[in-house]
This record gives sequence, structure tokens and C-alpha cells, in this order.
Amino acid sequence: MGDVANAVNETRQWRRLMQWAELGAIPGDGVNRPALSALDRQARRMLIAWAGEIGASVSIDAAANLWLRREGSDPAAAPVLTGSHMDTQPAGGRFDGAYGVMAGLEVLTALHDAGVVTRRAIEVVAWTNEEGSRFAPGCTGSMSWAGFRPADSWNDVRDQDGVSYGAALAEQLAAEADLPRRALGSRPFACIEAHIEQGPLLEAEGRDIGVVTGIQGSRWFTVTLQGQSAHAGTAPLRLRQDAVQDMVRAISALNALTADPQDVLRFTVGRINVSPNSSNSVAERVVFTIDLRHPDRDVLLERGDAMEAILRDAVKTCQVSVVENFHAMPAQFDAGIIATVQAAATALGISSSQMPSGAFHDAQFVAPIAPTGMIFVPSRSGISHNPAEFTSAAQLAQGTRVLAQALVALAG
Amino acid sequence: MGDVANAVNETRQWRRLMQWAELGAIPGDGVNRPALSALDRQARRMLIAWAGEIGASVSIDAAANLWLRREGSDPAAAPVLTGSHMDTQPAGGRFDGAYGVMAGLEVLTALHDAGVVTRRAIEVVAWTNEEGSRFAPGCTGSMSWAGFRPADSWNDVRDQDGVSYGAALAEQLAAEADLPRRALGSRPFACIEAHIEQGPLLEAEGRDIGVVTGIQGSRWFTVTLQGQSAHAGTAPLRLRQDAVQDMVRAISALNALTADPQDVLRFTVGRINVSPNSSNSVAERVVFTIDLRHPDRDVLLERGDAMEAILRDAVKTCQVSVVENFHAMPAQFDAGIIATVQAAATALGISSSQMPSGAFHDAQFVAPIAPTGMIFVPSRSGISHNPAEFTSAAQLAQGTRVLAQALVALAG
Repeated sequence: MGDVANAVNETRQWRRLMQWAELGAIPGDGVNRPALSALDRQARRMLIAWAGEIGASVSIDAAANLWLRREGSDPAAAPVLTGSHMDTQPAGGRFDGAYGVMAGLEVLTALHDAGVVTRRAIEVVAWTNEEGSRFAPGCTGSMSWAGFRPADSWNDVRDQDGVSYGAALAEQLAAEADLPRRALGSRPFACIEAHIEQGPLLEAEGRDIGVVTGIQGSRWFTVTLQGQSAHAGTAPLRLRQDAVQDMVRAISALNALTADPQDVLRFTVGRINVSPNSSNSVAERVVFTIDLRHPDRDVLLERGDAMEAILRDAVKTCQVSVVENFHAMPAQFDAGIIATVQAAATALGISSSQMPSGAFHDAQFVAPIAPTGMIFVPSRSGISHNPAEFTSAAQLAQGTRVLAQALVALAG
Repeated sequence: MGDVANAVNETRQWRRLMQWAELGAIPGDGVNRPALSALDRQARRMLIAWAGEIGASVSIDAAANLWLRREGSDPAAAPVLTGSHMDTQPAGGRFDGAYGVMAGLEVLTALHDAGVVTRRAIEVVAWTNEEGSRFAPGCTGSMSWAGFRPADSWNDVRDQDGVSYGAALAEQLAAEADLPRRALGSRPFACIEAHIEQGPLLEAEGRDIGVVTGIQGSRWFTVTLQGQSAHAGTAPLRLRQDAVQDMVRAISALNALTADPQDVLRFTVGRINVSPNSSNSVAERVVFTIDLRHPDRDVLLERGDAMEAILRDAVKTCQVSVVENFHAMPAQFDAGIIATVQAAATALGISSSQMPSGAFHDAQFVAPIAPTGMIFVPSRSGISHNPAEFTSAAQLAQGTRVLAQALVALAG
């Protein structure tokens, strides 16, 4: 098996990633390549051409997910799946999503170069619209495939230019009508998605590989504090209903509620809007958001459910309203897949850390269908969804070697 | 002297104020009457007509301050001065400024009705552009008169429509060229300005009159906290440079620094701008304002000067920048005038409280020239610079009675 990992070509993988990055390039090494766009189709054609060079077959499903398949010696055996997505944020980087598709292609190419035929086929998928920045929500491709929702569920969602998801999807399917069509849904033997970490942990710990144990759950809230405006020069503090001061009390109390010595829980107040937002007026209203994440369902439920009471207790003078806008419970990855990825890294002598994923990924919709896991590579300074997103060619190649080792172990 | 106070006519004063309020009326009982506008000139013509009914003389100076004078028995004696301003905020009320001019006119009218001739003349002034909302800064009329700045200092300041202060002033002077011109500058024997409180203290204490002891000083700062953006799902809290969290620490520390058991100090954070202000991104930058006010110069200097060190100490991860944008030291009113106003209220059996002014007033530019004081009447719920600004006809009349009693005491 080490032969395949050894056949992973760092230079080729980097060069191809940089060729993709030219499609939608923006200043500062960034990429803006929306889902279901002409640029997306150009990148997919490039992928199809590379697949052709090694004899992999190509197909597409009704959600425009693009599939590459390198046949195994037992075509009837369920395939092993890998892949990620090729769309980007509007001011995104070169690696988010693209790396996971490229790593899959690189494994197929390394198998080809090493002359290895696995028992099970290995499939590489490029999921449609993971980011959700052109058409919200994200992960529509993997959700459609998994049967989480019918593929036409988002047909009426429109982008900023008024183009509907349904129309953009139809355009993409028409433009790729030359490709064989495959059905939505399938039952892979196992799935491993490679992805950049999008956080700073691996870099901070000096590890090359994150063995991902699951995707944490999220709860999003909006808090409104309604006070009363007053003249900053005349209103005594004891008579004020100052929404900014109540916000400070509220956030301090939420910090205490969400304190976690293990630093696993993620609590973020990222958006604050103050009215009238005038330097010499006491704030009449503050609206702020809460983003709460944790890999443990019980923690997420307990802390999230406690917030409203904590807020009402902390706030002194304002009226409080708390609305939960979204929640997604945690996904736990398969113990066998986690062990397989871990064993692959260990066998290759590549340093690793087990960690949950803070961000969403398509893998969370594959997890209910088949044993699933993920491999992370380090993100410099933890930066992602930003042109400055960076992982070195060597780091990307280490991730792909672990992926190759693990996929071959699963494919037999 | 009580005769003059008794001659103050609550109904007449209220009716005239309501006539003014029709000039620039906006929904919700508000007024929008910009300085040096056609509406301003209409209101001044109304004032001039009322002055004419009681034989008061009218003049204007180079800053377009409008002067009414009721002659005394000793024309050579320095006059006693009262008055305020007639311009409003864009969404202002019916009483801010207008009341002080009307109270002066009402005192002259009451003197006329009572047939009382004082030894010193009593002058009523309507200062130009106190609000500063059409042309910044405010108080240009009283500053010009007091010699604080030459009257042409703001000629190039433009309003939202591109009209310059110089052009608007010239237009006003031309439109009122029929009025006798008087020189800028004079040395009144004393000055008392009547005004609405614009704060909630008198109402909270159930008092009719505020005997104003001075105008507190102000210092305005802008604080910038520069952190680093990160993904709310992936970045561990210990590795974040979260500008929102540092803002919470900063405001908490400033609250401690500015804590005042007497509740005289005014500390306000009224404006907060967060970047990128996205619910699932750790805040990269927060800019917030500080408005610090206190009537005691030493307290203002000491607390204001301590802020930067306190901020640098409180902030954990961000770079801190503190800029002082403006400062005005406190004005202390004349002990004799304070005593005179207090005695007038006591003699009339009207309840009162001694208090500093939280807001700026023209009186602070008169104070260096002549012994000066102010009289406040209650503001319902402390609301001002707002159409909902309200003081009852009875409360306004009580203020004018105290003003009459005090002016007559000073004018002899």
C-alpha cells in the first residue's frame, strides 16, 4: 500500500490546484468561482480531462454532482468514496473544497502510476454548491444525493442577479449533457473527505494531519436588547436604559455560561448593531448574534437552552428577546474510519491529531449513508474563506498520502 | 418684584410658542427650523412684531444675533441679558432654545403689563446657530459675540445642500437690513439663560426649577481594537484575537474607572462598529466611541487621562488605539447669579434643585464676559432633540416667573 502513497506527486497536485485557481482568480491569490457558473464548468472540464488521462470514467447526477470512478477488480463491490466541492466563497481561497477533489484525483493518478488495482472501485465526487454563497443553503448537492431533501427543493432560490437555482442547475446539466448520467443515491462501502482545516489547531500543535472525529453541532441565536435613547450629557446613569451596557452584561454572562477549560466549545458574538449608533446618545437598541458550537449534542442542548434565562438574569434595564435562527446537531464519524485514517498516518510516519471539525462539510450528509471520516491538512494562521487561505504543497501532499493509504486499505 | 412674576402669562407664552412651532412643523409635534433659513427669518419676524407691541427696540449684529431691549431708567447702566436660540435639530422639538427666547420676551411683556421700569435695561438675545446641525459647530452666534472666534471663522462651512455659512449669513443680514445694526461684543451686567433641562432629573426629583451651577466639561474619544478575523466554528477561543471580546473587557474596565456613587459623571459608549460584522466570523475590528462628561475639571482630566492605560491593560489580544477627538473644559457659573436664581425660586415658593448642565449652551460663551447663570425647566422623560420633547405650559410659566424675579432683582 505504501507504493500508492509514495506515488502521490506533490508537484503535480500543486500545479493542477494552481491551474484551477486561475479560473475565477481575484487579487491576493483568492478565487471567486460560484457554484453552477461558467467558471465552475471550466474547472470541471479540466478535472474531466485529467480523469481521462488515467482512464477513469466520468458521470453526473441530477444534482450536477460530478463523479470520477476508477474501476476495481470486483465491479460488484460497493465503491470507496472520496471528494469534496469545487465552488468557492465570493472572496475565497484556492484550497477550500478544491483540495479534497484534487486529493481524490491525485490518489486515482497515483494508483494508475503505481499500477495498483484495488478490489473495490474508488470514486471521487465533486459535490454541487457546498458553500451556499451563491444559492443558500450550502451542501445542496450532497443533501440531494443523500436523500436528505429532493433535488428540486431549492429550485426557487435566487442568486444576487435573480437567477434561480433551478435554472442554473438546468443550464449546468445541459452544458454537461455529453456526460453519462447516474442516479442520485448510492451506498458506498465507506467515505473519506480530505479538506483544509480552516482553523489554526494543527499549525499551533505542529501536526501535519487532523484525523477528524466528527462535525460539531451549531446553534445560532439573535438577541435584541431594547432600551431607551437619551442625551449622553444629561441622562444620569442610574436612570438610563442603556442597551450597550446591557449588552456588555449579557456577553459577560454568556462567557461564563460557555466557559470551557478544554477549549472545545465555540462561542462567538460576531455581529452587533447599535441604534441610533451616535457617539453622544445612549443606545436605544442593540441586536447581536450568538454562534454556539460543540461536538457533543448534550452540551450543545444544555448550554444553548440555558442562554435565554442567563440573558434575562444578566440584563438590568432593557427588554430582552432571544430568537434561535438555526440549529444542526453534531455528526459523529465512524470509529472504523477514524481508526483507518489514524493507522494510515501512523504507518506513513506522518504526525497527526484527532479533532472534531468546526465547519460544515458534505461529509456530514454522507455519514448517515455510509461509514465516513475526514482528513484535515493545516491552514496557515487558521485563515479560510479569504484570499490569504494557504496550505503548502508539501502539507497538501502529506494529506493526500494519508488519504491514498486509507482509501487503498478500505478498497482492499 | 413679585408683581412682575405674577404678570407672567402662562397662556400667552404657550400660545406664542405654539405659533413658532408651526414654522417648520414635522410629524409628532416636532420642529425642523434650520439656522439662517427662511423659516428662521419668519420666526424672528414674529418675535420682532411681539417686541414692537411692547415698545422694545430691536437690533441685529454681524453674526445675525437678534437683540430686543427694554430700556431702563438709567440707559448708561450695563444691561441685564437673557435669551437663547431659535434654531432646532433636524428632528427637534418645540422647546429647545425657543423657550429661552420666549421666556425673555414674556418677562419684557410682564414688565410692560405691570408698568414696572427697571434701573438697568433688560435685553433678550436670540443667538444664531446654536445647534450646529445645519452648520457645524454650534454656538457660532454666541462665540462670535464673545470674541471667542471672529464672526467670519465658519464662512466656508457648508450645509448638506452645499450652501456656505458665509452665504447663508449674508442672506440673513440682507433680509434683515431694515433692522438697526449693533456691534458685536458688549459687557452686560449679568446674564441668565432659561432652557429646558434635556434630561430627566427634575422630573425624577419632582422639582419645578433647576438652578444651574455650571456646564460640565466633555471629552470625546474613539477607541479602535484591531484583532483578527477567524471562522466561528473552527478557531479555538484561546487562539482568537476577538475584537468583540476585547471590547467587552474594555468597556467593563472603563465602567470601573468611571464609577461614581454620586452619579454626576457621565460615561457613554454610544457608537460601536464591528468588522466584518458577520454572525459566523470572529470580529476583526471594533471601533467604539467614549463620551465622558463631568462638571469638575480635575475629575475630567484625571479620568480622561487614565483611560488609555486602563484600556491597554484590559484588552487581552487586540492592538489598541485611542484618539481624543474633542474636549471642552467645564464652565462654572457665577456664585452671585446662582444665589439670585435660588432666591427668586425660594421667594416665589417654587421647588428647585441645584444642578450642573449636561448639554452645551450659549451661556457658556457668555460666562467669561459677565456673571452668568441658567434656569432649567423639566423635560418629560428627559427627552430632547426629538419631536416628543415636552414641558407643560404650567412648568414653562414657573420657569419664566423665576427668570422674571431674578432679572428684576439684577436690573434693580
